[in-house]
Amino acid sequence: MSRSPEWRQDPLTERLVLISPERAERPMKSAGVCPFCEGHESETPPEVLAYREPGSTPNGPGWRVRVVPNRFAAVRLDAGTDWHGSVGTDFQSVQHELDAKDRLEVCPHGSAPGIGVAEVFIECPYHEMTFCNLSREQMADVFRAWRDRLRFWHDDGRVAFVQIFRNEGSAAGASLDHCHSQLIGIPFVPHSVVEEVNHLATLRGFAGYCPLCRWVESGRNDERFVLESSRFAAFGPPAPRFPGETWLMPKFHIHAFDALGDDKLLEMADVVRDLLARIDQVFDAPAFNLVMKLPPFPLNDAYHWRLEILPRVTRIAGWELGTGIFINTMFPEDAAKLLRDAR
Amino acid sequence: MSRSPEWRQDPLTERLVLISPERAERPMKSAGVCPFCEGHESETPPEVLAYREPGSTPNGPGWRVRVVPNRFAAVRLDAGTDWHGSVGTDFQSVQHELDAKDRLEVCPHGSAPGIGVAEVFIECPYHEMTFCNLSREQMADVFRAWRDRLRFWHDDGRVAFVQIFRNEGSAAGASLDHCHSQLIGIPFVPHSVVEEVNHLATLRGFAGYCPLCRWVESGRNDERFVLESSRFAAFGPPAPRFPGETWLMPKFHIHAFDALGDDKLLEMADVVRDLLARIDQVFDAPAFNLVMKLPPFPLNDAYHWRLEILPRVTRIAGWELGTGIFINTMFPEDAAKLLRDAR
Repeated sequence: MSRSPEWRQDPLTERLVLISPERAERPMKSAGVCPFCEGHESETPPEVLAYREPGSTPNGPGWRVRVVPNRFAAVRLDAGTDWHGSVGTDFQSVQHELDAKDRLEVCPHGSAPGIGVAEVFIECPYHEMTFCNLSREQMADVFRAWRDRLRFWHDDGRVAFVQIFRNEGSAAGASLDHCHSQLIGIPFVPHSVVEEVNHLATLRGFAGYCPLCRWVESGRNDERFVLESSRFAAFGPPAPRFPGETWLMPKFHIHAFDALGDDKLLEMADVVRDLLARIDQVFDAPAFNLVMKLPPFPLNDAYHWRLEILPRVTRIAGWELGTGIFINTMFPEDAAKLLRDAR
Repeated sequence: MSRSPEWRQDPLTERLVLISPERAERPMKSAGVCPFCEGHESETPPEVLAYREPGSTPNGPGWRVRVVPNRFAAVRLDAGTDWHGSVGTDFQSVQHELDAKDRLEVCPHGSAPGIGVAEVFIECPYHEMTFCNLSREQMADVFRAWRDRLRFWHDDGRVAFVQIFRNEGSAAGASLDHCHSQLIGIPFVPHSVVEEVNHLATLRGFAGYCPLCRWVESGRNDERFVLESSRFAAFGPPAPRFPGETWLMPKFHIHAFDALGDDKLLEMADVVRDLLARIDQVFDAPAFNLVMKLPPFPLNDAYHWRLEILPRVTRIAGWELGTGIFINTMFPEDAAKLLRDAR
């Protein structure tokens, strides 16, 4: 049994990190039998959600998408309750205290128990499948599962923020072959998310409209436009971190992904499949991350969600780690043109 | 000839990135003849600094360390002079203007020319050499070159901030085999650096002393202590991003690296060689970054420099890119004990 996870904050840089030794115990590649394959349901923790064939039983075969608690979780709901602590350096004596009850920006100085929840979305029953090759129905089920677990944790009330993400390829941090995505929910809102939400609220107040709604309206007039469907649009962002970075947004105003209706899931899957096929072609099947940008639960109506696709074509090196500024080797206008012209 | 580099800022997240197509043209591995090897000096831009044997001539053989402009520079001093611009999205119309003359935190909204300077430190004349295996004299010459170029750019006045860094191994972003480190100087100070400098000034004002001086005094009493010499000490930081992350600091108060005296360079090399050998042993010769944390030129006296050693044992994945929070699989106290006990 590993030591319980902890949030730690650097007193000098105010950087927050999560220390989670359990995470190191996860198998880096599924050697031999894969616990995510159909027929091996007993090798994962019991499922918390599954879309199943009629007549199949929970934790047995017959599912399309299955969600289970992460056995090698970075955070745990039972990691503790005490949000205050100290790591015993002399820095502490000159630190100001933060209100631990303010869940919008709890950055506990020193350390705090690694409270949170971590779940795995097993995206299909078969081992030899990649996300890009999922059928449109299967991918729509994955998005439906993301949405349904988001709704669950929203209602549950024990976490303030949920990050849904997907790592494809080892350069993007993937540790298992079998097609899966992840959810981590934490009891506070990351500083960068607070800043973005506040900034968006300021822009909205100043302009009198949602800047993202206005952006998707621009459509093909934006030189970073990639593609659109009737209710979704994809653009290169103004300041991408990676070549080919693409943001997918709903064209209608909807603050949170958990409010997305069933009728939109297949259309979203069509757009994502199209985008990933183009990225595969232009950037030679790169490793990539999918990052759902979602509002924190307490601020649900001040946002317009998006899905970020981040091809890991370039590396994060000493410059980026020192300055926090990414160097990207391709202008987003050039990348968007390549992606528009692909296929 | 590639399009000139540009700084771009995202209007929503306020994230600044550098777009530099020229960077993509650099060779990913030195195939055939290496331009950094002794005898091939004509294949690099003319040297701006070299430590040479008596009687040798500039841009010929006979050097120990050689500094040249980066042929595949991410930034250029001649990239332009106009700090204001626009990227034509509707976001711009709701943006507030920033004072471009405030060099402490110029984050040009929209875009700006990719002004800056990029240099390469060729750390030894021989191709088959790694940084860890440099002699103490050779490594001291590398640090001396870092310091001397830092002095040069400080005096020059055209850049406000210099980042010196080193990428070892492809997972850490290295693109060439031949032993080298890099310097990038830019005409503004990165947001994260401004925040850290301001925060440190607040802590100092509150406490009446430099928190880093107090930290190094604690020495072996700190459970994250790794090793020390008479004038340097190394610790795991309170909130490391990677397993085995180690910070080397001078034990005496010195704000900027460019003020470091010649008499300290060999001792610093001894400590760094010792640290890297321990990290190699404990983490199985990982890819790593070296990141010099230096004050911006205009704020030179409000800092206490450090060298960060970042073993790239874990990957930056979707969670980190979404939240800005690193997950680390090892407690710094455990890593420090392993490093103390190594060798």
